Parts: sequence; structure tokens; C-alpha cells
Amino acid sequence: MKKQNQYQPPSIEFWFEFASNYSYLSVMRIEAAAALRGVNIIWKPFLLGPVFDALGWEEPPFIQQKEKGRYVWQDMQRQCRKYGLAWTQPTTFPRNSILSIRIALLGADQSWIGAYCRTIMQLNFAADRDIGNVEIISEALTLLQLPAAEIVEQAQSASNKLQLREQTAQAQAKGIFGAPTFFVRGEMFWGNDRLDDALEFAAQNSD
Amino acid sequence: MKKQNQYQPPSIEFWFEFASNYSYLSVMRIEAAAALRGVNIIWKPFLLGPVFDALGWEEPPFIQQKEKGRYVWQDMQRQCRKYGLAWTQPTTFPRNSILSIRIALLGADQSWIGAYCRTIMQLNFAADRDIGNVEIISEALTLLQLPAAEIVEQAQSASNKLQLREQTAQAQAKGIFGAPTFFVRGEMFWGNDRLDDALEFAAQNSD
Repeated sequence: MKKQNQYQPPSIEFWFEFASNYSYLSVMRIEAAAALRGVNIIWKPFLLGPVFDALGWEEPPFIQQKEKGRYVWQDMQRQCRKYGLAWTQPTTFPRNSILSIRIALLGADQSWIGAYCRTIMQLNFAADRDIGNVEIISEALTLLQLPAAEIVEQAQSASNKLQLREQTAQAQAKGIFGAPTFFVRGEMFWGNDRLDDALEFAAQNSD
Repeated sequence: MKKQNQYQPPSIEFWFEFASNYSYLSVMRIEAAAALRGVNIIWKPFLLGPVFDALGWEEPPFIQQKEKGRYVWQDMQRQCRKYGLAWTQPTTFPRNSILSIRIALLGADQSWIGAYCRTIMQLNFAADRDIGNVEIISEALTLLQLPAAEIVEQAQSASNKLQLREQTAQAQAKGIFGAPTFFVRGEMFWGNDRLDDALEFAAQNSD
């Protein structure tokens, strides 16, 4: 039995990476899809590189495997068409995402997190820009009316760097092996293809 | 410009394996889903083992990787609930599917192919029975009012065995790296999660 004042809206943990193409699909869709179901998003940016390293993979699994690699780019083109998203196969893949992810961690609880994440993802997967470049990221922040220099400096602080290492370690501890990954009441859902199932689960029996 | 008598209904090639858990979901769903859209199914049973061998994988990819393996069984449970399918995690995985696949190849153009495939899949993934066992397969065929002994004998003929090797080689030549895989007008769609997209694509612009 819960007390009235303990009510928490249903929520979903969203673990994502700017270098990850399937995270692109979810970053672009999640705010609208979650709002429709009254589900709160807990943004959990992390780095896939250390996770893949720990699993003994040198590269994203589908890059290691030629047939699968070719397929994924065809699949992305079709998925983007389905969801009405722009798509350009990045000329560099996977891109260095560390600064952009540090900024996402810094802003995870801020009102600008959704717009920021969509901007970075579109730079990478629609405009084919280098999201590892501090000038490109700063321009994007400025366009969002945010204090770019201040945010970049805070994102590069020792404490924020440490926090990202801790968040990435937490991803590993939770058994995450790819991105995007969602958690709802402790249950893992992997991949953009499970976003709707995860939100459905969050919205049901949520109290 | 096509002549009237050249009309072909839209069709989908369905490449599947009885040992594959995600093929279970598609085998159970495809006839109803394809009928709704007026799409004809071309049944393409093949063996995943040689395909994985050629890719340098000793086992299904998610079995090699512990975190992913745990997740897949949880995912299967939820997917089966979503589709209204029975589910029991097989005590042996992956199961030897060679005889059951040889029979599927023999019956690929027969009216009993759908019912046969669903029966075998349910034995493996709902009843946890050994689908490599000739007696269990024979019982299943008999239940379907089919001449079990005759079918088993034809399935084990040299020519049918050769045909399955050729079909499996064709799967590799087409770049297949997992099951289920669908082809529509030469375009590959991988995984039960893409069955609806593939059928949609088949139904659109089909003439």
C-alpha cells in the first residue's frame, strides 16, 4: 500500500551513446513516445567503448562482421524512412563521442537534455559532422541558447569525467552489452526495437 | 508495362531454422500476417550451423556472450507474452534440427508446410521436446494426418540431403548471417522484429 504523497510517475531509464546508430533512432523518438504514455525519462548517457572492451570486442559487433555490417546500413536507411528521420551514413564510424557524452551527463537533469541530444545525433547521422570536435559542439550549444564555453568547461572538469567513468561502470554492472538499452522497474529492454515495449511496460501497473 | 497474365502476387522469402528461437516467433506469426496483406510466402528452411561456422562463430552469437545470453531468454519470454505464444526455455539449446529441416525442405511447396513448421516449433520452444528425435517428428507428422514413414524416408534421401546443402549454401551466398531472415524483391530484412516491415514492403508497389 502506497501513501498518496509517495506517488512517482512511471519512468524509464534510457542508456544511450552518441556514437551508436540505433541510439540515434531512440534519441529522436523517445520524448514524444514517452510523453504520449505519461512516462518520465531518466537520461543515462554512457560510453560504449569501455563496455565493448570489457566484453572482448574491439569494435561494434556488426562492424567486425562484414555481412552484418552491410545489412545494418541498409536497415538504418529503411528505419529512418519509417520513422521520418533524416539519414546520412557517417563517413567516420563509430565517431569519438566522449566530449558530447560528458556534456549529456552534465545536462541529464536539465530541461535542455532532449533538444541537445537530438542536435548531436542529427549532426552525426544526418549532417555527417564530427561530433568529437569542440567547435562543432559549441556551435550546437550556442544555437540552443546555452552558454557553450561554460558547459564545455564544466563537462571537462575532473569531477564530471569521474562521474562518466562511474556511470559507464554502472552500465557494465547492470549487464548492458549495447545501446540503446532501457530499464523499467529493473527489467532490461535492448535496442530501439524494444522502446515501445519498454514504454508500454512502464505505463502499465505503474502504481 | 506488364501483361495481365504475368501478374504475380507479392511474395516474401522466409529463411528460417527450427533451432532458432527468434525463428519460432516468425514461424508462428507469418501465415496470418502475410494473409492479411495478400502476400505469398516462399518457405526457405536452411541450416544455421554451417552459416555460423563459415562466419567463424562456434555457437549462436548470443550464446558466446553471457550478458546477451541471459537477456535473450528474458526477451523471448516477453515477446511470447506480447504475441500470445506459449514459451518454455529449451533445456537443450540449440537443438539438432537437421531431420526436421530436411522435412521442411521436402514440404516447402506443400499445403502442410505452415502447420508442420508451427508443430515443430511448438515442440521445441513450448513443449521442450527433442526435435532431433525421429519418433517425436513422426508422431507430429501423423497427428497432421501425413504419411510419416514415407516423408521421413524421402527427407533422408540423397537428393533431398543435397538440396538442403545447396539451399544452405544459397543462404550464405545471399549474405544471410542469422535467422529468421526475409527477402522481398531482393532486399534483406533480418529478424522477427522486421517481419512486419518486410510484409509492408512486399505489399507496397508490388506491381
